[in-house]
Amino acid sequence: MGKSKLRAAILGVTGMVGQQYVRMLENHPWFEVTTLVGSRSAGKLYGEAVEWIDSYEPPARIMNMPVKVAEPESEDVDLVFSSLPTEAAYQLDTKYAARFPTVSDASSYRMEPDVPLLIPEVNPDHLGLLEVQRRKRGWKGSLVTSPNCTATGLVIALKPLHDAYRIRKAVVSTMQALSGAGYPGVPSLRIIDNVIPYIKGEEEKVAAETKKMLGAKSSDAISPDPMGVSVMVHRVATIDGHLESAYIETERPVDVEEAKEVLRDFRGKPQEMKLPTAPERPIIVMEQDDRPQPRLDRMAGSVPGMSTVVGRVRRGLDDHSLRLTLLSHNTIRGAAGNAILIAEMMHELGYLE
Amino acid sequence: MGKSKLRAAILGVTGMVGQQYVRMLENHPWFEVTTLVGSRSAGKLYGEAVEWIDSYEPPARIMNMPVKVAEPESEDVDLVFSSLPTEAAYQLDTKYAARFPTVSDASSYRMEPDVPLLIPEVNPDHLGLLEVQRRKRGWKGSLVTSPNCTATGLVIALKPLHDAYRIRKAVVSTMQALSGAGYPGVPSLRIIDNVIPYIKGEEEKVAAETKKMLGAKSSDAISPDPMGVSVMVHRVATIDGHLESAYIETERPVDVEEAKEVLRDFRGKPQEMKLPTAPERPIIVMEQDDRPQPRLDRMAGSVPGMSTVVGRVRRGLDDHSLRLTLLSHNTIRGAAGNAILIAEMMHELGYLE
Amino acid sequence: MGKSKLRAAILGVTGMVGQQYVRMLENHPWFEVTTLVGSRSAGKLYGEAVEWIDSYEPPARIMNMPVKVAEPESEDVDLVFSSLPTEAAYQLDTKYAARFPTVSDASSYRMEPDVPLLIPEVNPDHLGLLEVQRRKRGWKGSLVTSPNCTATGLVIALKPLHDAYRIRKAVVSTMQALSGAGYPGVPSLRIIDNVIPYIKGEEEKVAAETKKMLGAKSSDAISPDPMGVSVMVHRVATIDGHLESAYIETERPVDVEEAKEVLRDFRGKPQEMKLPTAPERPIIVMEQDDRPQPRLDRMAGSVPGMSTVVGRVRRGLDDHSLRLTLLSHNTIRGAAGNAILIAEMMHELGYLE
Amino acid sequence: MGKSKLRAAILGVTGMVGQQYVRMLENHPWFEVTTLVGSRSAGKLYGEAVEWIDSYEPPARIMNMPVKVAEPESEDVDLVFSSLPTEAAYQLDTKYAARFPTVSDASSYRMEPDVPLLIPEVNPDHLGLLEVQRRKRGWKGSLVTSPNCTATGLVIALKPLHDAYRIRKAVVSTMQALSGAGYPGVPSLRIIDNVIPYIKGEEEKVAAETKKMLGAKSSDAISPDPMGVSVMVHRVATIDGHLESAYIETERPVDVEEAKEVLRDFRGKPQEMKLPTAPERPIIVMEQDDRPQPRLDRMAGSVPGMSTVVGRVRRGLDDHSLRLTLLSHNTIRGAAGNAILIAEMMHELGYLE
Repeated sequence: MGKSKLRAAILGVTGMVGQQYVRMLENHPWFEVTTLVGSRSAGKLYGEAVEWIDSYEPPARIMNMPVKVAEPESEDVDLVFSSLPTEAAYQLDTKYAARFPTVSDASSYRMEPDVPLLIPEVNPDHLGLLEVQRRKRGWKGSLVTSPNCTATGLVIALKPLHDAYRIRKAVVSTMQALSGAGYPGVPSLRIIDNVIPYIKGEEEKVAAETKKMLGAKSSDAISPDPMGVSVMVHRVATIDGHLESAYIETERPVDVEEAKEVLRDFRGKPQEMKLPTAPERPIIVMEQDDRPQPRLDRMAGSVPGMSTVVGRVRRGLDDHSLRLTLLSHNTIRGAAGNAILIAEMMHELGYLE
Repeated sequence: MGKSKLRAAILGVTGMVGQQYVRMLENHPWFEVTTLVGSRSAGKLYGEAVEWIDSYEPPARIMNMPVKVAEPESEDVDLVFSSLPTEAAYQLDTKYAARFPTVSDASSYRMEPDVPLLIPEVNPDHLGLLEVQRRKRGWKGSLVTSPNCTATGLVIALKPLHDAYRIRKAVVSTMQALSGAGYPGVPSLRIIDNVIPYIKGEEEKVAAETKKMLGAKSSDAISPDPMGVSVMVHRVATIDGHLESAYIETERPVDVEEAKEVLRDFRGKPQEMKLPTAPERPIIVMEQDDRPQPRLDRMAGSVPGMSTVVGRVRRGLDDHSLRLTLLSHNTIRGAAGNAILIAEMMHELGYLE
Repeated sequence: MGKSKLRAAILGVTGMVGQQYVRMLENHPWFEVTTLVGSRSAGKLYGEAVEWIDSYEPPARIMNMPVKVAEPESEDVDLVFSSLPTEAAYQLDTKYAARFPTVSDASSYRMEPDVPLLIPEVNPDHLGLLEVQRRKRGWKGSLVTSPNCTATGLVIALKPLHDAYRIRKAVVSTMQALSGAGYPGVPSLRIIDNVIPYIKGEEEKVAAETKKMLGAKSSDAISPDPMGVSVMVHRVATIDGHLESAYIETERPVDVEEAKEVLRDFRGKPQEMKLPTAPERPIIVMEQDDRPQPRLDRMAGSVPGMSTVVGRVRRGLDDHSLRLTLLSHNTIRGAAGNAILIAEMMHELGYLE
Repeated sequence: MGKSKLRAAILGVTGMVGQQYVRMLENHPWFEVTTLVGSRSAGKLYGEAVEWIDSYEPPARIMNMPVKVAEPESEDVDLVFSSLPTEAAYQLDTKYAARFPTVSDASSYRMEPDVPLLIPEVNPDHLGLLEVQRRKRGWKGSLVTSPNCTATGLVIALKPLHDAYRIRKAVVSTMQALSGAGYPGVPSLRIIDNVIPYIKGEEEKVAAETKKMLGAKSSDAISPDPMGVSVMVHRVATIDGHLESAYIETERPVDVEEAKEVLRDFRGKPQEMKLPTAPERPIIVMEQDDRPQPRLDRMAGSVPGMSTVVGRVRRGLDDHSLRLTLLSHNTIRGAAGNAILIAEMMHELGYLE
């Protein structure tokens, strides 16, 4: 690119998702991190403030950058990535969005009628809501949200099946990674030799967000898809990668081998546009009996952590039902990676100007 | 009891389930272990042969007993507990059953039409098949089987709900403990920071066994229950205790609070008969948001490891569906404990004479 | 006992050690818990306040008792067990000790010259310091401290060897359990597939406390033992039980088999006095190549969690050195259990009157 | 390079170390894998035979290559890497060495007087033994061995300290990763919530190999270094990376800050020669209190897995002792990586012609 890079701020930069932003935006062809915002760590250098818990070595440039408090009115950037905690996001995401194109991982505004909840491969047309948003709120900037980390992989896997067979019900049990709880997150005494069958608010979020993302956009709103979604969540002792076991019932009869083709052939706008963070294949279908597995497969694909890995596709109870296991990296596609992909698509569609 | 104890043989005594038999029969009021049978370890003392992997200290009496090869024709015992590997059980379970009352944990004969597959609280009437069995096979002894460790907890939880609401479909995802794979079982390199979404043959077994146990006994056979059962299995890094997340659809409308009462109030013949290994409550219902958990709850109840612990009972997609999480100790209620309870019930009903 | 039980308060009762006190004092023959003190949880019932993380089911009587704030001046009890965090213990332990016999697990006063740091089997004569303490401080009550959980097992194993061979140097590497860090303690993201070679302040504490406990009591002070103690600590992913690998050099030549006898034959005052919480054998020596192991052996012995389990006793570099591995339960003998044993010994010696 | 690559055979190619060879030799500038040898998997394609347990995706070229039986007399290669199990290595390593330059990870011949046991940074001069070897055995090829995975990191860290301060004693406790036991290796039931203080034969190997590698080469033999080495080994629940906690006593007084410089400044022949697999810094010294940690640091440095990471350098008992923690990747530097580095050095020194 001849022109200079867009300057990006990261809000909540010392958290687990913040750390993924730092990693994924280093050497990004279009965006450059120029502002780090954190509340508790404001005033320190990033290298002093962050409890880095990844084996990846953080870039020296960022480690030596100062972390500052949020100043939505005077920030000098071209776009904003927010991974603030829910409460802080309620306060700040809209203030930033009033002035800057803002992509947020927080759950705070995901279900607002005029806020797109986006997976670029799944519902790029929902970006059209931004016109409603601008009209209604009078913002110079905009707010787009990235979904819950468990909903993300689920919706990517359901989308092509829904298009092909029309899903009526999805019953899902999850086995979610520890990094999904942030840091410090789950105490080790709770999870060694254990499974916790509960994550506060998660089941409701996954169901509602799934229906919103698969919903149809009319002139100025999204009608949630009518499918039934029942989610049962569990925390297990894995570091990264949410595994989900799904049973679906469909309107049209479903053939297992054909369904695998449908999953394999799925492509979206990010693949057409060849966006930098778009994986070649949004869905990787594995044929081995015992895959996907979190430790082996969470980084599979051409852009590690961005593909949803599906396996064990098999018959359900009859010709109108299907079972499968899916794996999605929760801090990459389930957070920072999806948000960056949103920003890349917005960039190419002229929404960042 | 004034009379002397019945002499019991344990087949496959050095395995994980064999170790549970040793533990649970020590100080049993009615049965006494007098014969230890193992193939690879024959000729050694038990203490030399066994790789004891429990924190419980094995009884000195047993540690000093010799392990011998199987001699079904000349064994001098009153009853037999078999926890042989599948292949060996095919060879030996029927040879023992020809002469002795035999209770087997092996899957080999579970689905035979004239072999009861039994959970004493659930289908004690299936014991009536033994008449058919004797007639057909001409045995002096008998063969009763104990179900798959995953089916066991599931069927205990489904039974009272089925009676109350008539279940049409059950969709179940399991998170199974390492001890279910025996010893050495799952390599540690496979399971640390991981989940394996596959256990060979398990999904089919759980579905078929569930339908047999909940089936109706006619004069000389069992008609499997017509409900649909779809099972998706996963191995997780827990030592003991299979956790199962279930979604059911029912014929009659179901009320969540009432369903909890139905589960809580469930009692069976073992409780009526006050059998030594019968837990006071076959089902324990927990109200906390985040329970049951394998490490905390697998030993809950008056006879540790014998109760099924149910939690997170909540609404499914509509008035005819329900979700719940259940936990069952796989080597106790899921194997040795259930087999011992079967033998105790047979004893009281005169089947061991 | 004909007389009624002594009434005990537990300070810091909702923490991990507090939970062990509750468990171990239930049904105690001499002591009865009558007062629960906690700061953050004051005003709640114990059952509401505690995050119980053990599979043991807490006694209903205690679950329904209120937790109250500390009121050292008006408490109505006969003795006090303190497991307060260090800072709170600085404030409160001495206030309670001014009025009541107080046994504290906190590190706050362990190194004070007039405060006994006690393992009843090792240095019961250090209780004599209480005369100095009373004289110097004018207290009606008294303060005795229980050592660091890592020092406890180490000192128990070193004591008989020191008596027999005179230890000059001990080089120790520890592999410590998660429960030693309290709750919530170590984040799971830090410890899965990992070891942390650091625990703040631990190495210094273990060295200093070991030398104090093995030191000689003169008329009114303890001279620390002159042996060199070098400790390197590590946190590993075990729930309970600190494993320690020790290399020692001795003044007198040491024979391996004789050293095992010396360890096996070790008995102390609690065994002589047959105190209720005294294990029959303070040290259990295992001969198997691969023991002790935390999960298998932390509860070994006649009073689970109170014995130090020693194994792999073998030659060091020459005739004056020895190596061994030891295991000690950190929240039982390393905290609540040792404190209760101290109180039992004080009771029998008339210090609680 | 203008000339074509040297053709390499890998013996034992489906094992864990074999898998590392495949990964590290893909795209190697000088060597090309042309022959895969395995016993049980002979006749299959590599992709069918291997139980791949790494998240790295194996190269398609290798996955489609056949695995063949060993034929030392007719193999058509330029060099051989052997990672056979001990027994097979006894049979085959010398047969291959009779014809080809062979680098072996097996322990079988490591302690033979005429066989170099090599870490290229530590004792490159020991390669001179090959003249003795050729003379004595009449081989066309040669045999060089790569040390035990625990000895490797230890010796790299001790070497510069030994040169600077002359080490008299090293007391080492290890916390070793699961991959060191191969596959299937340690059963998961043994290691969850546990530590195993034993690995058969390991302590003796580490001590003897350390002394050989640090020993002096005379005209035709190595005199083992006289330092005392006492090793206590433990298996912990980490995937990769052996952590070792070391206490050393030195002849000359040692200053902590200076010792860190000595470690940091260490460079060897591979760095001078800029060998492809040589890390820029053989030793990385970390200053953080709680590092190195296996999961975070095992892949640190310019060639992941090839550097020894040292931390917690601190005073021992007096001016002549020092403590430190070190981490070394056991299947990379501790096996395949070191063997490849040996071959690279031999290549540059003309030993492969």
